[in-house]
Amino acid sequence: MKLGVCYYPEQWDESLWASDARRMAELGLSTVRIAEFAWALIEPAPGRFEWDWLDRAINTLAEAGLEVVLGTPTAAPPHWLVEQHPDVLAVDAHGRTKPFGSRRHYCFSSETFHTASARVVTAMAERYGSHPAVIAWQTDNEYGCHDTTVSYSQGALKRFRAWLAERYGSIEALNQAWGNVFWSMTYARFEDVGLPVAMPAPPNPSQLLAFQRFASDEVLRYNRMQVEILRRHAPGRPVLHNFMGFFGSFEHHKMGRDLDIASWDSYPLGHLDGMNVASEAEKLAHRRTGHPDIAAFNHDLYRGVVASGRWWVMEQQAGPVNWAPWNALPLPGMVRAWTWEAFAHGAELVSYFRWRQVPYAQEQLHSGLNTPDNLLATGGEEAAQVARELATVPVETSRPARVALVVDYAGKWALDALPNSADFDVHTLQLRWYSALRRLGLDVDVLPASADFSGYQLVAVPTLPVVSPDFVDRLQRSGAQLVFGPRSGSRTAEMHIAEGLPPGPLRALFPGLRVTAVEGLRPGIALPVSLGDTSAQVTRWRDVLDLPAGLTAEGSYSDGHAAVVQHGLARYISGWLCDAGLGAVMARAASAAGLPAQPLPEGLRLRRRGRLQFAVHYGEQAVQLPAPADARFVLGGPVLEAGGVAAWWLD
Amino acid sequence: MKLGVCYYPEQWDESLWASDARRMAELGLSTVRIAEFAWALIEPAPGRFEWDWLDRAINTLAEAGLEVVLGTPTAAPPHWLVEQHPDVLAVDAHGRTKPFGSRRHYCFSSETFHTASARVVTAMAERYGSHPAVIAWQTDNEYGCHDTTVSYSQGALKRFRAWLAERYGSIEALNQAWGNVFWSMTYARFEDVGLPVAMPAPPNPSQLLAFQRFASDEVLRYNRMQVEILRRHAPGRPVLHNFMGFFGSFEHHKMGRDLDIASWDSYPLGHLDGMNVASEAEKLAHRRTGHPDIAAFNHDLYRGVVASGRWWVMEQQAGPVNWAPWNALPLPGMVRAWTWEAFAHGAELVSYFRWRQVPYAQEQLHSGLNTPDNLLATGGEEAAQVARELATVPVETSRPARVALVVDYAGKWALDALPNSADFDVHTLQLRWYSALRRLGLDVDVLPASADFSGYQLVAVPTLPVVSPDFVDRLQRSGAQLVFGPRSGSRTAEMHIAEGLPPGPLRALFPGLRVTAVEGLRPGIALPVSLGDTSAQVTRWRDVLDLPAGLTAEGSYSDGHAAVVQHGLARYISGWLCDAGLGAVMARAASAAGLPAQPLPEGLRLRRRGRLQFAVHYGEQAVQLPAPADARFVLGGPVLEAGGVAAWWLD
Amino acid sequence: MKLGVCYYPEQWDESLWASDARRMAELGLSTVRIAEFAWALIEPAPGRFEWDWLDRAINTLAEAGLEVVLGTPTAAPPHWLVEQHPDVLAVDAHGRTKPFGSRRHYCFSSETFHTASARVVTAMAERYGSHPAVIAWQTDNEYGCHDTTVSYSQGALKRFRAWLAERYGSIEALNQAWGNVFWSMTYARFEDVGLPVAMPAPPNPSQLLAFQRFASDEVLRYNRMQVEILRRHAPGRPVLHNFMGFFGSFEHHKMGRDLDIASWDSYPLGHLDGMNVASEAEKLAHRRTGHPDIAAFNHDLYRGVVASGRWWVMEQQAGPVNWAPWNALPLPGMVRAWTWEAFAHGAELVSYFRWRQVPYAQEQLHSGLNTPDNLLATGGEEAAQVARELATVPVETSRPARVALVVDYAGKWALDALPNSADFDVHTLQLRWYSALRRLGLDVDVLPASADFSGYQLVAVPTLPVVSPDFVDRLQRSGAQLVFGPRSGSRTAEMHIAEGLPPGPLRALFPGLRVTAVEGLRPGIALPVSLGDTSAQVTRWRDVLDLPAGLTAEGSYSDGHAAVVQHGLARYISGWLCDAGLGAVMARAASAAGLPAQPLPEGLRLRRRGRLQFAVHYGEQAVQLPAPADARFVLGGPVLEAGGVAAWWLD
Repeated sequence: MKLGVCYYPEQWDESLWASDARRMAELGLSTVRIAEFAWALIEPAPGRFEWDWLDRAINTLAEAGLEVVLGTPTAAPPHWLVEQHPDVLAVDAHGRTKPFGSRRHYCFSSETFHTASARVVTAMAERYGSHPAVIAWQTDNEYGCHDTTVSYSQGALKRFRAWLAERYGSIEALNQAWGNVFWSMTYARFEDVGLPVAMPAPPNPSQLLAFQRFASDEVLRYNRMQVEILRRHAPGRPVLHNFMGFFGSFEHHKMGRDLDIASWDSYPLGHLDGMNVASEAEKLAHRRTGHPDIAAFNHDLYRGVVASGRWWVMEQQAGPVNWAPWNALPLPGMVRAWTWEAFAHGAELVSYFRWRQVPYAQEQLHSGLNTPDNLLATGGEEAAQVARELATVPVETSRPARVALVVDYAGKWALDALPNSADFDVHTLQLRWYSALRRLGLDVDVLPASADFSGYQLVAVPTLPVVSPDFVDRLQRSGAQLVFGPRSGSRTAEMHIAEGLPPGPLRALFPGLRVTAVEGLRPGIALPVSLGDTSAQVTRWRDVLDLPAGLTAEGSYSDGHAAVVQHGLARYISGWLCDAGLGAVMARAASAAGLPAQPLPEGLRLRRRGRLQFAVHYGEQAVQLPAPADARFVLGGPVLEAGGVAAWWLD
Repeated sequence: MKLGVCYYPEQWDESLWASDARRMAELGLSTVRIAEFAWALIEPAPGRFEWDWLDRAINTLAEAGLEVVLGTPTAAPPHWLVEQHPDVLAVDAHGRTKPFGSRRHYCFSSETFHTASARVVTAMAERYGSHPAVIAWQTDNEYGCHDTTVSYSQGALKRFRAWLAERYGSIEALNQAWGNVFWSMTYARFEDVGLPVAMPAPPNPSQLLAFQRFASDEVLRYNRMQVEILRRHAPGRPVLHNFMGFFGSFEHHKMGRDLDIASWDSYPLGHLDGMNVASEAEKLAHRRTGHPDIAAFNHDLYRGVVASGRWWVMEQQAGPVNWAPWNALPLPGMVRAWTWEAFAHGAELVSYFRWRQVPYAQEQLHSGLNTPDNLLATGGEEAAQVARELATVPVETSRPARVALVVDYAGKWALDALPNSADFDVHTLQLRWYSALRRLGLDVDVLPASADFSGYQLVAVPTLPVVSPDFVDRLQRSGAQLVFGPRSGSRTAEMHIAEGLPPGPLRALFPGLRVTAVEGLRPGIALPVSLGDTSAQVTRWRDVLDLPAGLTAEGSYSDGHAAVVQHGLARYISGWLCDAGLGAVMARAASAAGLPAQPLPEGLRLRRRGRLQFAVHYGEQAVQLPAPADARFVLGGPVLEAGGVAAWWLD
Repeated sequence: MKLGVCYYPEQWDESLWASDARRMAELGLSTVRIAEFAWALIEPAPGRFEWDWLDRAINTLAEAGLEVVLGTPTAAPPHWLVEQHPDVLAVDAHGRTKPFGSRRHYCFSSETFHTASARVVTAMAERYGSHPAVIAWQTDNEYGCHDTTVSYSQGALKRFRAWLAERYGSIEALNQAWGNVFWSMTYARFEDVGLPVAMPAPPNPSQLLAFQRFASDEVLRYNRMQVEILRRHAPGRPVLHNFMGFFGSFEHHKMGRDLDIASWDSYPLGHLDGMNVASEAEKLAHRRTGHPDIAAFNHDLYRGVVASGRWWVMEQQAGPVNWAPWNALPLPGMVRAWTWEAFAHGAELVSYFRWRQVPYAQEQLHSGLNTPDNLLATGGEEAAQVARELATVPVETSRPARVALVVDYAGKWALDALPNSADFDVHTLQLRWYSALRRLGLDVDVLPASADFSGYQLVAVPTLPVVSPDFVDRLQRSGAQLVFGPRSGSRTAEMHIAEGLPPGPLRALFPGLRVTAVEGLRPGIALPVSLGDTSAQVTRWRDVLDLPAGLTAEGSYSDGHAAVVQHGLARYISGWLCDAGLGAVMARAASAAGLPAQPLPEGLRLRRRGRLQFAVHYGEQAVQLPAPADARFVLGGPVLEAGGVAAWWLD
């Protein structure tokens, strides 16, 4: 459990570097990430590299006893590259080439960009690959940020066609896979296929899904190129990428196979206000604490992205950010609390963004540990507090949870390609399910469908349109209680309706079950669901179930259709169920799984790391912790105020 | 009164065809529409036609005793055509060419497209024009769907200029007609005129109106080309087109002159959720029944589109659709109820969309009579019920109603070109007026302003900006009570303010009446109107009237201005009047006309066909029908539940 | 105090001209503006001028005793110019060239357009510069209307680069000034810099600010070209431009240096509905009166735009307009009231738009003093009433107010470039502050930061991001009470955070004060502020203050941070304070300044002109005026109804 910080020496007078480094060390930070936007300084002209400044920066940090994480600088290609090779630039959905002047203007399919990237990454890795202070490498920065996974360039079109030829083998196979007989959409050659954009009527969802898969593969290919160079020239140094929260446009777990550490950028207030996964009421209630489950969800997700389970928070919000529509101040204590929440979930390192607020350019209103005039800010003080506390809290090894929640990137693309209900948002659904489990005090591992589920006692699947028989098999072998959400098993891999109707392969768990119709429910419509003692309701979506004999309806709609179906170890929730309803179903499944599950006080969350039980409080009212009377606390005590943190030994 | 279905043999394995045909016949269907999206299969390469599959499909249907309606396949031009002739593609308002990959990507002004269309229609008509099973032809499919009436292509520009030259004769006449002296917009030649799009300030409304007229004419010209070919090669077979609901971008009645049957595609739930003609409260209340008047309005409209009065429902919603923002499940019984509503309004044929839900491509979430795994869906069961009931209900001849409601396509374009109140939506206004009449139990014919009104006792005109003296003359000769809505008579045919101020030529009915000002009322503003015993209000719009002596104010605003003016047989409603207010005025007019008008119970609607009185119930609570105690029912009985249908003999 | 009217002889049959002129004079109008959209008539072909019609028009007016203001016709370039020189056309943010067909389609950076403009302005000025009836000239019309200040054309790009070279001298200086080391945005040459549009991530705010400054300079340059021609050929005739309300895209006070009179176009109802400066509740409450402070604010602003203080209302709303989303009817009496409000604020001339409603083209629903059928409209009757009243009300000289409110164009661009709170709208903030002062009965001068503040007793600065030491110096020397709003002193001129943190140079007034963080507050969040007896709240924005000893917190947030800071003569309001809170702070400052300040009845406003006290009532309920019992009224009496006007002698 270490602390780090993001630092941009190139943005400050060199006279500050040494004192910055000393103060970082004094504050208790151990790791510094640098250079990920410094391409123009590293290679000011094509092939001309300037290392002196970076040598001095790294050495200054090293001399203060700090470790360095080096970022490859490809997220911000310099002007000379764009000028020499305009094909480097991406093209937006309106057909406009994205101009130079901010960042991430490049197209993943540009071969010129691959060549230029390889050159700068190679040069950098050659120079610093064996530097003793450089302990890890980060590739690029936040792939896909600002909606940049997809590009509608000629380069992308050319590579998409080649990708299709590779995937389908023949154009007949593609026509078959996409159902192109519909609306006379058949192609004679792969060269006929265009990009799924700007059509008068909706594009074929199979084409949309294929294009999203292609775009994801392009990101993976680009990253792999960088990783291979780094492995060659920086042996023994772990390679990581810094992902984002609830970001779904490429396959994170596939990229994880190429990485040693997963890291992500956690901005609890930015994510609360800037994303639409939380409700309006939650946005108001948690305006200064962040949502109790958004960061936690992503912690639990990124822990599973790399096989080893190693993960960091590469950028931790340390004060107000600048990029959400409204950017509020954190409650005093929250920077500390967020840090401990990350450690509780097993983080190795929490690295704050950024050392000092920069007084110019796009992010001048983004706070840091220090104010622009170099005084320690509130976030800096809280970081120092965590550093002191770290000395007294033992590092426990994070162990797998007993509950798994399954996510799937292609599944999200499939539903986005065919929403049928304008507010069926997959990330929102995932968060609601995850919250329902966490509000019962359960620890959760967020896993891909390809995971090994042995050892889990409860597996929750908010939605998984494309289900493989192998997935069902692994679930069955796990012996876990299973809970599936709407639209699970509804699609084939090529975006057809599942064989024999949804839930398709899940019929292995629910014999004879068929979804005979679906409906999207506009805002204002809530279908009452009776669920034992719980008065629940379904909004946004419902699968209409044809329930065969032998399956049990644990809850029903007022028109008699089954709302929750139970059979053996498995349950199927047929709609977008409210929080109360999800809580009731999860409690039932947890009980059947032999998991202790008790509703927590409003705003309180628990998370175990090894033998330590952590608690963080996101609510307004002070709460009594569910700790034994004789609990031995290593942090805090039995009562938590808003923003409070505690940890005690489990026996 | 027959039932039909839309079928796509090309989307299914041929082994299914015979059993499909047999099951259709067994279900009680008599007519099958096919082929309207099959161009790529019919003509897989330029000039190479493949008839075998279609021969077999038609013959398989014929052998089961089914009649076939053949659709020309031009709504989905194949890729080879687009590749060879990119000018076939339409251009959107942002200047982007609409790419291949969905449907309706063609430009009505492309001569290349006319040529290619003529070739495939001719070939198809030559082959099947005399086929005994092919009993009718459909041209293209849903002209204008996906906002495709208008194209901003170079081809459209060229033809627009020629159209202008034809209409105006000289550029001076055009400048005069459009008032181009304003803002120095004068042109020296027809070649100077551009398309009314993307200008910094609003375009001249006269130009907008001219462009919409041109675009409508282009649709008519394209359709006429197809009709002429079909008449030549398929003698004796009626030709129809399938129109859409509340669709206003081309002149339906003018196209009707070229057709033998009008048909339309009725999706009560899709229209409720996907259109903005109903209020939010209505969208919630009728989420499973559809709006009681949306389908009915369009039935009554399309009955008047072809001179003979022949009309069909070509596509009838038979379960959830896939294309509205939210797509709900119909209430059980509604597919049957919608079908009877159509028959009550005089439909010859109700044809369900579609035989079987297709498990792939864009419409995979659009239900059909059968599920994708080929079991009869709820909608299929209800269709079968209707088929059984048809055996017991006599076919009565539909007679003209006593009430006419006037609509006008160019009038809608005129008001859209100059809204002056952001929520003055003509279709919404038409629906409100129509509903007010129907809630009084009145049958309504929806007619164009060019209609013959003799025989009508009440003519309602929700709004008609461009009034011809001839129209006024026909109204006067009819002797009917007349009710006009706001903005009637407000514009000349070239989009100037009417001579002597609005209501222009309507002053023949309201001597001396002048609209001296107009006002748009933002949401939240409701002007109280006293209207006898009725407390009413006006929102969105009011005409400020200068009321001369001799005219009677039947209702007034609180500032003293007249709200409803009466003179002789005519009334003028000066604003966007609420439902209660409209009901009161219509009741008064109906009473004056000697028409029995009684408010119906909430959700109930009546419609007479010949000597049979039909009733359909869209409300939640069971209602007692306004039938005599000794009524002889041929369908249902004196009490209707939600979704219920009844019919009894009138004496 | 004179009345005028806007007239378009070219739009009417010449037979009407003489009677129009006669009726204008009879009505009491003295001044007529003409010709500002008549380029196509003045120069129907390149270099061919037709003066006859304009000669006759001017002479007809002159013969009726009317004075003429001639508008140069450049706001609507004719088709032949666009056809010959397509580079005349502006380019929008989507990269589309704006087509001919409306108005303001030109690009300020087009040299061709400058040349063509100079030719027509020269010709016009040569012909009419010494015409005795032509008493003043207007340049172009409403610069920037329809979002036309900015153009993304190649011409603009070229000139922007030259402008940058001029401003910064070297590319290194530009890189430094913009902080281009951030995100590798450094440029090697001025030719590398592009336009700040369509980038994947936000552009550098320094670049945005520079581009807005450039665009403003381009407008100034274009106007100056016209002014210089007019001065040469129309000696002794004042030159003016007609600005708009709350329009912020170019530097009005800088343009004012080139003009003799400032005029603006006042549309109280159009501005209320079409702008977002008023709240929804105000839009409803004042739907027929207009907001009590929107027109007044702009009167007080434009009085300060030209050094002499001369100002006119060039276009005064005289009935419903056509261009807001909803366009309501004024309350009877309001056209009169608006006119008197303008005179109360010191207007020399109020000129109505327009003489007669034109029955065709874009503005056919824009009312005038006369209806299209040439009868006097309500607005015309009220204008006549004002004309009669003018005979009895002496013309007093307008004197400077005791209260100044400071606005800054570049400051608005700075905050727009970096909003950080999606609803921090500078114009809305200015209106709220201005209203708070006016509700206390105070007269206000709206001034630029460059003004001389000597003589003022209270200076209010709603927000001023860029503060110069010189400004602080002038304020201090004035001895006035000072009230600053949030974000004041927060930025350097190049868009960096102020030295030593905000409020930067304002620390001269608030020793040691530092804004250590800022926060944007989403709708629904209101921070309570205790402010003496007043319960206030802050929404949208707050600066978090580090309050040093010696400064007084006059109000605090519930978390203990200071909300309002007082020191010496100065106050700093740290957030977007509610009306009640602003009222309390302003009352305190006014009291300290020795200014009498009493809350006025709801809807009532006062304004002094010389020795006359005017009152206009925008509320619904009749109010008793705060006039002495023995007040000598020259207009109205001691009680005002809605829309009422009064004036009495001050002693």
